[in-house]
Amino acid sequence: MVRDDSLTSATPSAAARRAPSTSIPPGIVCAEDYAGAATGCLDPATYAHVAGGAAHDVTVEANRRAYEAWDLWPRVLRDVTVGHTRLRLADRDLAHPILLAPLAQQRAWHPDAELATARGAAASDSVLVLSTLSSVPLEAVARVAGPVRWFQLYLQAQREVTRDLVARAAAAGYAALVVTVDAPVQAASHRALRAGYRAPIDAVAANLDGYPSPARGAADAGWRASLADAMRVAPTWEELRALIRDGPLPVWVKGVAHPDDARRLVDLGVAGLVVSNHGGRGLDGAPASLAVLPRVRSAVPRPFPLLFDGGIRRGSDVFKALALGADAVLVGRLQAYALAVAGALGVAHMVRLLREELAICMALTGCSDLSAITADTLIPSSAPAIASLPVPLA
Amino acid sequence: MVRDDSLTSATPSAAARRAPSTSIPPGIVCAEDYAGAATGCLDPATYAHVAGGAAHDVTVEANRRAYEAWDLWPRVLRDVTVGHTRLRLADRDLAHPILLAPLAQQRAWHPDAELATARGAAASDSVLVLSTLSSVPLEAVARVAGPVRWFQLYLQAQREVTRDLVARAAAAGYAALVVTVDAPVQAASHRALRAGYRAPIDAVAANLDGYPSPARGAADAGWRASLADAMRVAPTWEELRALIRDGPLPVWVKGVAHPDDARRLVDLGVAGLVVSNHGGRGLDGAPASLAVLPRVRSAVPRPFPLLFDGGIRRGSDVFKALALGADAVLVGRLQAYALAVAGALGVAHMVRLLREELAICMALTGCSDLSAITADTLIPSSAPAIASLPVPLA
Amino acid sequence: MVRDDSLTSATPSAAARRAPSTSIPPGIVCAEDYAGAATGCLDPATYAHVAGGAAHDVTVEANRRAYEAWDLWPRVLRDVTVGHTRLRLADRDLAHPILLAPLAQQRAWHPDAELATARGAAASDSVLVLSTLSSVPLEAVARVAGPVRWFQLYLQAQREVTRDLVARAAAAGYAALVVTVDAPVQAASHRALRAGYRAPIDAVAANLDGYPSPARGAADAGWRASLADAMRVAPTWEELRALIRDGPLPVWVKGVAHPDDARRLVDLGVAGLVVSNHGGRGLDGAPASLAVLPRVRSAVPRPFPLLFDGGIRRGSDVFKALALGADAVLVGRLQAYALAVAGALGVAHMVRLLREELAICMALTGCSDLSAITADTLIPSSAPAIASLPVPLA
Amino acid sequence: MVRDDSLTSATPSAAARRAPSTSIPPGIVCAEDYAGAATGCLDPATYAHVAGGAAHDVTVEANRRAYEAWDLWPRVLRDVTVGHTRLRLADRDLAHPILLAPLAQQRAWHPDAELATARGAAASDSVLVLSTLSSVPLEAVARVAGPVRWFQLYLQAQREVTRDLVARAAAAGYAALVVTVDAPVQAASHRALRAGYRAPIDAVAANLDGYPSPARGAADAGWRASLADAMRVAPTWEELRALIRDGPLPVWVKGVAHPDDARRLVDLGVAGLVVSNHGGRGLDGAPASLAVLPRVRSAVPRPFPLLFDGGIRRGSDVFKALALGADAVLVGRLQAYALAVAGALGVAHMVRLLREELAICMALTGCSDLSAITADTLIPSSAPAIASLPVPLA
Repeated sequence: MVRDDSLTSATPSAAARRAPSTSIPPGIVCAEDYAGAATGCLDPATYAHVAGGAAHDVTVEANRRAYEAWDLWPRVLRDVTVGHTRLRLADRDLAHPILLAPLAQQRAWHPDAELATARGAAASDSVLVLSTLSSVPLEAVARVAGPVRWFQLYLQAQREVTRDLVARAAAAGYAALVVTVDAPVQAASHRALRAGYRAPIDAVAANLDGYPSPARGAADAGWRASLADAMRVAPTWEELRALIRDGPLPVWVKGVAHPDDARRLVDLGVAGLVVSNHGGRGLDGAPASLAVLPRVRSAVPRPFPLLFDGGIRRGSDVFKALALGADAVLVGRLQAYALAVAGALGVAHMVRLLREELAICMALTGCSDLSAITADTLIPSSAPAIASLPVPLA
Repeated sequence: MVRDDSLTSATPSAAARRAPSTSIPPGIVCAEDYAGAATGCLDPATYAHVAGGAAHDVTVEANRRAYEAWDLWPRVLRDVTVGHTRLRLADRDLAHPILLAPLAQQRAWHPDAELATARGAAASDSVLVLSTLSSVPLEAVARVAGPVRWFQLYLQAQREVTRDLVARAAAAGYAALVVTVDAPVQAASHRALRAGYRAPIDAVAANLDGYPSPARGAADAGWRASLADAMRVAPTWEELRALIRDGPLPVWVKGVAHPDDARRLVDLGVAGLVVSNHGGRGLDGAPASLAVLPRVRSAVPRPFPLLFDGGIRRGSDVFKALALGADAVLVGRLQAYALAVAGALGVAHMVRLLREELAICMALTGCSDLSAITADTLIPSSAPAIASLPVPLA
Repeated sequence: MVRDDSLTSATPSAAARRAPSTSIPPGIVCAEDYAGAATGCLDPATYAHVAGGAAHDVTVEANRRAYEAWDLWPRVLRDVTVGHTRLRLADRDLAHPILLAPLAQQRAWHPDAELATARGAAASDSVLVLSTLSSVPLEAVARVAGPVRWFQLYLQAQREVTRDLVARAAAAGYAALVVTVDAPVQAASHRALRAGYRAPIDAVAANLDGYPSPARGAADAGWRASLADAMRVAPTWEELRALIRDGPLPVWVKGVAHPDDARRLVDLGVAGLVVSNHGGRGLDGAPASLAVLPRVRSAVPRPFPLLFDGGIRRGSDVFKALALGADAVLVGRLQAYALAVAGALGVAHMVRLLREELAICMALTGCSDLSAITADTLIPSSAPAIASLPVPLA
Repeated sequence: MVRDDSLTSATPSAAARRAPSTSIPPGIVCAEDYAGAATGCLDPATYAHVAGGAAHDVTVEANRRAYEAWDLWPRVLRDVTVGHTRLRLADRDLAHPILLAPLAQQRAWHPDAELATARGAAASDSVLVLSTLSSVPLEAVARVAGPVRWFQLYLQAQREVTRDLVARAAAAGYAALVVTVDAPVQAASHRALRAGYRAPIDAVAANLDGYPSPARGAADAGWRASLADAMRVAPTWEELRALIRDGPLPVWVKGVAHPDDARRLVDLGVAGLVVSNHGGRGLDGAPASLAVLPRVRSAVPRPFPLLFDGGIRRGSDVFKALALGADAVLVGRLQAYALAVAGALGVAHMVRLLREELAICMALTGCSDLSAITADTLIPSSAPAIASLPVPLA
């Protein structure tokens, strides 16, 4: 594997994990609490690996703090007796706009790994986006997953491997491909390194088992070898075009932060986009996802499907992302924490809490469905020390 | 009771409270000091319940910090030899613009509960706004209260109960209704939950004693049952219209944060409005009350009566709220703290301190009465790290 | 005494003070260091009384932090071989623009009190502004003072007392009156109160010794008695007009923060103004002096003489005040600290350090005299978390 | 020596230094880590002297924090397979844009002093800029240095000394002069003073050995003697003109912060400029170098060569400086720290890390060479509490 996901893996030894709970711990009062609870379930190095991002965590921190720039504007006396969080996305009716982001090699966090996550997704009516780097084969996950599952695809160095993965995903009932393009190379997480994190030697990318290893290229005069190798197999417009053309699955692209890239991808024919900075695990120093979301949305106006991830911890975060242009959101770290704490049950409970938190925000801003969550429902934060963000389009 | 006020109640056991002082503790040098002094009079869980707001306290904090965005502009050599804090509000002459906000079930903080508060209000010439969820019947409170008392009304699930409450309030000499509309559903306070706060099993809403319980509706497909139930009994424009039409009391509405809602309520015929976010106990993530006040005032120009609450701790806070558009303010948490510390005496002393602090601000800005406290008396804060708020209208 | 200066006095008992040094302590590397050194020379309550301002110290803090909003813009290769800090002010040639602000009853800080300060002023070629509330009679101070001394005047309740003070000051060679108008009433310093500070019973305002006490007025219906009393004797436009008309000394007014007040005072015929908020000891919540300075300067253009005080600790602070419109500055707390630390020697050393710090700023911004310190020498701070201040006029 | 560089020297006794490592310590995961690692290799006073700047470190802090005002804008799917960090500067092909800033008397940090730095520069293909105040003669350094070396020149009080230095530099193969103009006088570092730092008595400025000492002038009436002396020998336009005219080396000027100075220097015929505030060791209170860089660049448009230093710690810092107008950057404190930690090896490793960090930023913003790093690659930071900086020119 040349391309490497920094959520790839953690020491899977017995010492690395404590036994996950089989019930919800008593102190969990909101979705965000899973982050704290997970410190008791993961060894410190593994926790640091999940929590940290690329290099200095500049973007990890920015992702979180960007939500502080906006307040929710309460409305009163509106009739929201009958409300719901449903949406139609990619020709499917979904119960709510909270998807589970693709996270690699989840065995590091729970022995049931992606099987538990898939069960939690099914139990909470969530779309599961399975990582290429799953620790469980995509076919096995499909057997326990709910009806709506997508497959996250890292384009492989050898195009025939990519094609085979796509074919397998289609055969196993994955309804869409989500091609990650924002992390062809990653700086290691300093936080994880300082906590003593080491990629475990027995980490397995089960989906890639049996494929041949790609040849390494000759060193270039410019980049040093490892960077040149990484960039040589980075996804290209051409590969993406082929993937869209060849089918059979619709192609989403994940990792877009610039309106020009978004426009060009729409022109290329992608089914949808995910505004993301890889949870701060790609380019350290990239802006918060939330900060670029309105710009990307204004480049690709509705109804073009736009998803979003980056730092979501609360129902109000989901609300703000929707108000600033997203159709739905993906949740990454909270998913990992919930899985670590209570397996499938934790994942389902975390999504339920987030969904209820979102519903309360909707009720108190007078929104009876997601389409009511427009930019008008937000107001720049009144709190001091909050810089203003670009004003969203109405 | 479906609708629930997060200030509703606290464990009323002996252990939950220490004996309140019968005199002012020596360390109180300003109104705000009651917040600190109360930590010695309330058990930690009850204190957390008073101090906390909905969920993460985002709005509680915003309410407090919004005052930092403005400075008071000193003027010199003006003749303010004869000055006063009087105002005319709702056809009554009031000694000062500091009202006591409606707070539910005050027995949790002091054995004399609302009776003590009412005596403190009378002693300090303050308007008392009694909560629907008082731990003492409104009739008993009326017997010890001062001449100006209002009744805060939660619209009840059964309209006949609402009507009966209104009739009782009118009969007991309450001069106005203050209908709270901003918290049909509330997220629990995380701070209170983490401090071990539990709603006491013997909490009593004395005014509602003897009314039948409302029937619960069938679960809807969208909101989960508890939210659907809550929203089903949330106040509506129609109910409000009926209340205004049926009389006999003038109807104020509390909990407005958006200029469009304010405009529509004025058109409906309300007697006045209270800009409020329920002290941060409604929608967590709502803007500071102070931040939206100028916008609401510009939507409903003077002389339409506009009250305000949210985070007031100091005389300069009162001054800023008046300068940004309020005719008078309501004080919530400080009232609870003062009650807990020294009962009726504490409440009266707290109001007196706040009023004196306001008077000094007036004297040093050259304002001999409240009408002189215009937007010109403020200047955006010169302190670094303070974001600018919307400029008030002159 | 009705009017009361919060720097008035401190417990003058032996316990309240440690013996002041007779030499400069070794750790003083810049003028600001006197603030720290003084903690070892004053008892905590007295220190708190000096350091604190009105109420919550909001304005004390704002005064200090306002300097952070501006950077000094370095220039290179300019010929500043021959430079100086001289200026002409009130028809006198001064060696530098650092005046000693009027501080009341300095015996609380050093046994030699104002005599030591006057000697320090003389030794450092500084203008001394002696307080009405000096602990030493103005005549005695005049005997040890340098050639340029001014007299700070609180207008007294009885006009004949005021007239007598003016006559005495003129007779003793004080060249100007500085009438303080910004603190007819003051909120006590919470910091000082909490530190146990109590005004000493033997505090003496030596200049007022022997004058009759003013009668107290009847209580008004509005303000409570103490505030009404204070405001009844507050300075008025009429008194000021009489003072200017009757002579014989030129009248400066200290405590101006609003351009309209400044304009009106210039029209009245004052000799000069001092932009000041009484070091944060007047209206708590007033803007930083530095924040209003450019507005006042633009209302009373050069060459009208404009002085400034408020939070000056460093040579770069002096530089910024000059660049934003001041002709010279007054130093208050640093003076008190230096006096407490090392008496006359400390005061002279503190001024010398501040003057040298200013000179280095001048050399590195290419200013060979004070007239070169224009608004062009500043640039809004590049540091994050610094809000922008009003842009100064060029 | 009249002119004095605050990085001049540190106590060179055995106690002042611990033995430098001969290998890279295990905890170094990024270039910035050398700052922490050096605390174990330098005595605290020497460390404080390196880390501190003039006076209060206002500008040192501003230099660091200015980078937080900008984010890097990720781009996807660009072909950066073949990329490099090469540039052409001053008629030479350089492998990367990271130069080693001139630092005085490096024996204080490592026994091999500038010889180690020169070897590290050669090993990492870095341009070495040797200080006039080197602890090793420039000829000896030249013998171990790489092919591209420049000489930093302090103009000397006696013009013939300056001329001799230039001749020696030219003879020893230094390809350019970098004349420092921003620190004719410096305030001592308070941090260093408080840490007990004293300039060592045996500090040697090897290049100046044997030259006569300049005469001191008579004291002027204005500045005190030491400042007058310093300014009398400060560089002037005339001296600079002569230096350019007389040759033989191209003359760069270091220490420019104002666009007007930059313009005038270009008109004078300098070969290039270095935007710098002497690492915060000149005028304390000067703006961050990064904050003035776009203004200077807009005054001297490309292709005029503009270098930059001030607070660089990370590859993303280098990237931001290039995006805001620099052609290349100089690294000062990191160089000193790396030298202290591991001598030549440390210097080379630090540069390599910084270069790799830069390369990753380039790859993830889609820049295959330095010319692609334009202002379009940045976006104002989305993080709260970050004030906006002047927008760079496109």
